[in-house]
Amino acid sequence: MKMRPFGRLLPAETARRRLLRAVVPVEATETVGLADAVGRVVSEDHRAPFPVPGFSRATWDGYALRFRDTRDATSRSPARLRLVGEVHAEDRLDRPLSRGEAVAIATGGAIPRGADAVIIFEEVSVEGSELLVPRRVRRGERIADPGDDFAKGARLVRRGVELTPAALGALAAIGRTEIEVFARPMVRVIPNGNELVAPGGSRGPGQIYETNNVTLSAVISAAGGIARAVPPVVDDAEAIERAIREALSDSDLVLVTGGSSVGDHDYLPVIFPRLGRLLFHGIAVRPGKPTLAVATSSRLVIGMPGHPTSCLLNAYWLLLPVLRRLGHRSGPGWIDTTVTMAEPYDVPTAGLSTVVPLKVARGTGTPTFRDSSAITSLSGANAFALLPPGRSHLRRGARVSAHLLPFPISAAAEP
Amino acid sequence: MKMRPFGRLLPAETARRRLLRAVVPVEATETVGLADAVGRVVSEDHRAPFPVPGFSRATWDGYALRFRDTRDATSRSPARLRLVGEVHAEDRLDRPLSRGEAVAIATGGAIPRGADAVIIFEEVSVEGSELLVPRRVRRGERIADPGDDFAKGARLVRRGVELTPAALGALAAIGRTEIEVFARPMVRVIPNGNELVAPGGSRGPGQIYETNNVTLSAVISAAGGIARAVPPVVDDAEAIERAIREALSDSDLVLVTGGSSVGDHDYLPVIFPRLGRLLFHGIAVRPGKPTLAVATSSRLVIGMPGHPTSCLLNAYWLLLPVLRRLGHRSGPGWIDTTVTMAEPYDVPTAGLSTVVPLKVARGTGTPTFRDSSAITSLSGANAFALLPPGRSHLRRGARVSAHLLPFPISAAAEP
Repeated sequence: MKMRPFGRLLPAETARRRLLRAVVPVEATETVGLADAVGRVVSEDHRAPFPVPGFSRATWDGYALRFRDTRDATSRSPARLRLVGEVHAEDRLDRPLSRGEAVAIATGGAIPRGADAVIIFEEVSVEGSELLVPRRVRRGERIADPGDDFAKGARLVRRGVELTPAALGALAAIGRTEIEVFARPMVRVIPNGNELVAPGGSRGPGQIYETNNVTLSAVISAAGGIARAVPPVVDDAEAIERAIREALSDSDLVLVTGGSSVGDHDYLPVIFPRLGRLLFHGIAVRPGKPTLAVATSSRLVIGMPGHPTSCLLNAYWLLLPVLRRLGHRSGPGWIDTTVTMAEPYDVPTAGLSTVVPLKVARGTGTPTFRDSSAITSLSGANAFALLPPGRSHLRRGARVSAHLLPFPISAAAEP
Repeated sequence: MKMRPFGRLLPAETARRRLLRAVVPVEATETVGLADAVGRVVSEDHRAPFPVPGFSRATWDGYALRFRDTRDATSRSPARLRLVGEVHAEDRLDRPLSRGEAVAIATGGAIPRGADAVIIFEEVSVEGSELLVPRRVRRGERIADPGDDFAKGARLVRRGVELTPAALGALAAIGRTEIEVFARPMVRVIPNGNELVAPGGSRGPGQIYETNNVTLSAVISAAGGIARAVPPVVDDAEAIERAIREALSDSDLVLVTGGSSVGDHDYLPVIFPRLGRLLFHGIAVRPGKPTLAVATSSRLVIGMPGHPTSCLLNAYWLLLPVLRRLGHRSGPGWIDTTVTMAEPYDVPTAGLSTVVPLKVARGTGTPTFRDSSAITSLSGANAFALLPPGRSHLRRGARVSAHLLPFPISAAAEP
């Protein structure tokens, strides 16, 4: 067995930075209905074509009046106003309000001309057609003026923003029914290895079911991308290169799993330099060292470790930010927090950075890592820590920077 | 204008508990491909039909050997073993390994009978067909034994679990291609109010575009449900009741927005008692007081406030946990944290609980609330606080329990 040893291993943070700098975010856009747009990324700024509200509105059920008429009102000597009608949300009073008059008004009702304040039902009493107001009312009380929510020309959403429920509400308020968003990045996953059988197939001796495709696809779609996998490709340099070049023709990012190390059946170190500018081969991180990346003119190809746990942990700390940037999303996609170690943990290789999967609950973190080949190492993890080189032992009670993973919703909700 | 005053307002936590207790989670299930299943909720336990790995495997590139042969090895006097072949990931050696022999083995390769340890390439040297091992190797070193990842019969995923990338990987490892999950809850939204026009329509005088449908639909889909809206229904008791009964026939939950307060055009307090068991009318919370709920035999109908901001804030603290329970998801759907107030905030009504939308960044929270009718009050918020009654003023620097919202990913990632 021949070896093609790693060159200088690249520090983890450097590898991630280098990769992020090489990302070319997707350019394509598409139009989606507002009701389907939560979490999508807006491709251009949107400004208000008119102010909202467009007219003065009551913000509460009560009575519209002229505040000056209540100037001297007290609970002992209330102002007495003539009730001259009702304004429901959709109505307008057909004439201006005169001195000494008041009109019942429902939340959202248009404030009649002449009126300049609203007092709520609970504060007043009615005697026949007379309204008794027991205090001085402030000008503008319980009234939303035109443009109070936003003015004409106000920027409602910015290019690059992920649409929240509230942002979608602002777009609905200007009558929008759909919006232009960036297309979801298309990501191809190419599993590589003679020992791999796609789930559902039948295993020969020494063969195992391929799992990286499913775990990476899950990360890709949770990060807003579309994952498309090909069946496992055998350890054959030509077959792998062909699969990569095909994938490059219709994808925004290509991931190859396995074949990324230094053995003589690891062909990626041979193929990648032919595809473009090699960004790195080998990261100073455990697990996850056998990782390499190449930038073609406008695409990235990343060779991920074949070990299921190494591959998925790399997807957490390295791939997730790349996927997000590809889709114009800002930030790495996890939530930074600090946890207290629930048990001691020996960091296996002090010279490298170490990724520790954690189960975080109520501020404490429990390492779940057992073995790079054991996918169940990560089943219980909802977070991870990326420890810098040189940190060789974590005692029980040590404080560690951790990152909460964004999938699933409830895992993030657990701490 | 007549009034139907609230009865005793229900404390916020009581209202939420009462609502959650009345939720009947969806029963329907559906089969989805593993690649599309991230975040979906598993409807039954799944156990491993065979152990993984199914055979002893090398966890590293190196040499398989018999550990006893290295018992006396030191760097000065290394054990010398005969190299008798290579085992790639998919191969097996065709005969047992004898005393004094070693075989090159790739990560994932089947450990030959007789071999019981692997030493990595980097630690040894080769002289011709001789392997020099400079230290005592531990039994089982760099070997994954059958069942090391999981044993036959191990429970891989539990009913009610939201599928993570790692859980999907475990299912792929047993050859699964699809999985049974609970159907997404179907939620109908019925906007109610004469002043409302669906976005895209043309507004008459005193009319505004309806926004609650879009904001609620976004929350529903972010919580794993499917939102279906009907066009705004006018303030007519019969029309509203008909729309609710129609919605009940094909939905798991019905939300009506507006018409939930005490004015004489607020028909929900009249209609709801006819539909089933009234859970409450009026919550001791600001904003969001005009909220009511009724439990039919197997469904909930919730009347949400018509004010866009009140409606959406209620969706955060009250509806989100209901939607999650409806879909068999555990936890409320937000992340608990503590923030330091970046500026003082006057709580308007000390006698009620108060919901304060917050923009949380780097551990500090800035209130974004301006007005119940202003949807932009929430555009900048990525969290909220639910303050108990009696807390009337928050000074700058006060520590407040806050809840990070799960949408969008990047909003959650910001702190």
